[in-house]
Amino acid sequence: MERIEEHACHGGRQQVWKHASETLSCEMRLGVYLPPQTERAACAVLYWLSGLTCTEQNFITKAGAQRYAAEHGLILVAPDTSPRGPGVADAEGYDIGLGAGFYVDATQSPWSLQYRMHEYVTQELPALVETFFPTTQTRSISGHSMGGHGALVAALRNPGRYRSVSAFSPIVAPSQVPWGQKAFTQYLGSDTAAWKEWDTVELVRDASERLPLLIDQGEADEFLDPQLRPDLLRRACADAGHPLHLRMRAGYDHSYYFIASFIGEHIAHHAAALRG
Amino acid sequence: MERIEEHACHGGRQQVWKHASETLSCEMRLGVYLPPQTERAACAVLYWLSGLTCTEQNFITKAGAQRYAAEHGLILVAPDTSPRGPGVADAEGYDIGLGAGFYVDATQSPWSLQYRMHEYVTQELPALVETFFPTTQTRSISGHSMGGHGALVAALRNPGRYRSVSAFSPIVAPSQVPWGQKAFTQYLGSDTAAWKEWDTVELVRDASERLPLLIDQGEADEFLDPQLRPDLLRRACADAGHPLHLRMRAGYDHSYYFIASFIGEHIAHHAAALRG
Repeated sequence: MERIEEHACHGGRQQVWKHASETLSCEMRLGVYLPPQTERAACAVLYWLSGLTCTEQNFITKAGAQRYAAEHGLILVAPDTSPRGPGVADAEGYDIGLGAGFYVDATQSPWSLQYRMHEYVTQELPALVETFFPTTQTRSISGHSMGGHGALVAALRNPGRYRSVSAFSPIVAPSQVPWGQKAFTQYLGSDTAAWKEWDTVELVRDASERLPLLIDQGEADEFLDPQLRPDLLRRACADAGHPLHLRMRAGYDHSYYFIASFIGEHIAHHAAALRG
Repeated sequence: MERIEEHACHGGRQQVWKHASETLSCEMRLGVYLPPQTERAACAVLYWLSGLTCTEQNFITKAGAQRYAAEHGLILVAPDTSPRGPGVADAEGYDIGLGAGFYVDATQSPWSLQYRMHEYVTQELPALVETFFPTTQTRSISGHSMGGHGALVAALRNPGRYRSVSAFSPIVAPSQVPWGQKAFTQYLGSDTAAWKEWDTVELVRDASERLPLLIDQGEADEFLDPQLRPDLLRRACADAGHPLHLRMRAGYDHSYYFIASFIGEHIAHHAAALRG
């Protein structure tokens, strides 16, 4: 772990670290916000997964989350969205390859060698964070768009690992929408049976843990239909009896202005769960 | 005026507009945040001047100011930092030309043709804003670094025009520091007598209006010495009896993480003055 940025922020410290990831076989960067409370005590961690084209920078510079993390005493950890660096597989288009890991463990060549973002985010990253920072080893997870999908899948596939989960504008049914179908065909192959374990709408059908899903979705989101489809999640949760708090927000779009407007409510939600 | 972006944000609207500027003879962009209160009533305006290399985007995406503007019912207006576009004079280096207007009215060729950012910011821009948006025609001004200099000079040269002024990490003595000396030689010529009317430390010596200067300055700011020199302003204000609230902030640097940490206090300060 090498620290490459540090800035005082809201009484705490916004840092950027890089480390050699074993899971991904490349050097990865992550944003870490340490609230002022970490000077005296261990704190719980909220993981944030960003969306397509993002790096570790977008959330830490645009969401305004540090203010709320400082209020509630939460550490924020924001990793990159795919493996990075020379030799990492890539493809044409913003929605496959670099910046588009989709938080799955790829099974298809050439992706399977390094595109293991689910394992990275749910296993290697927390182990690293809990070694290097003063954490209580309690975790929650959130994210935006592709990262909202990543957060929901991370929580649903790993019962007991997260105290709470939330998402902004998530891709809830990747198997049924263009972004997800394109990515899953590349990363997981054309047998759609293999897609089910990476699809929130499928996973809620028999989730062993009834962790409530807190979701904010802008009604003016330019990707609402056909990419995001919260209606499919609403139906799946109703069918399965899985708790869902889906808040449709009139006028809001897919941008960080939307995230900045409601990240305070999400952080308060996670802080309450992490205290509980 | 043409609107080129609009995003719901904290109950209001973050917009970006472009217009043909007469003062600058080019097309200019500006960020405008309309808080929810503008749906029902006119609001006061806080102008924000950004620093070197910035456009109208930096403040609106990184400062997290909209939350506080929505709380207090202030319109935020953030213009670009220089004339822009094909044919606009430029030079080598980030600190002269595009992105580096220094908020002066240039007298030297080739700059004098378009680099009239002081006139633009203090005259054309407020006239435009007060025509197009529901304002109370009351104004305050703030800014960062080069824009902190611009805000202080705008207030000191135009008594009665602003209800309050503040700055983050401002260049307070451009005549005495490398950034200012380089820019002023280009824009105003080598006769340093002409520089005095664009230099906060000189202007406070005989300001006709005793508008208090609220300034936040990070102690870990990488430009503190030799570029910013708050000590020179402290001495000048003491000598002149000009009210100064200079807050040195331990650990903070020159970045937007610093601005985001204290912009709420600045907006509260301006809101109080604008209500008064």
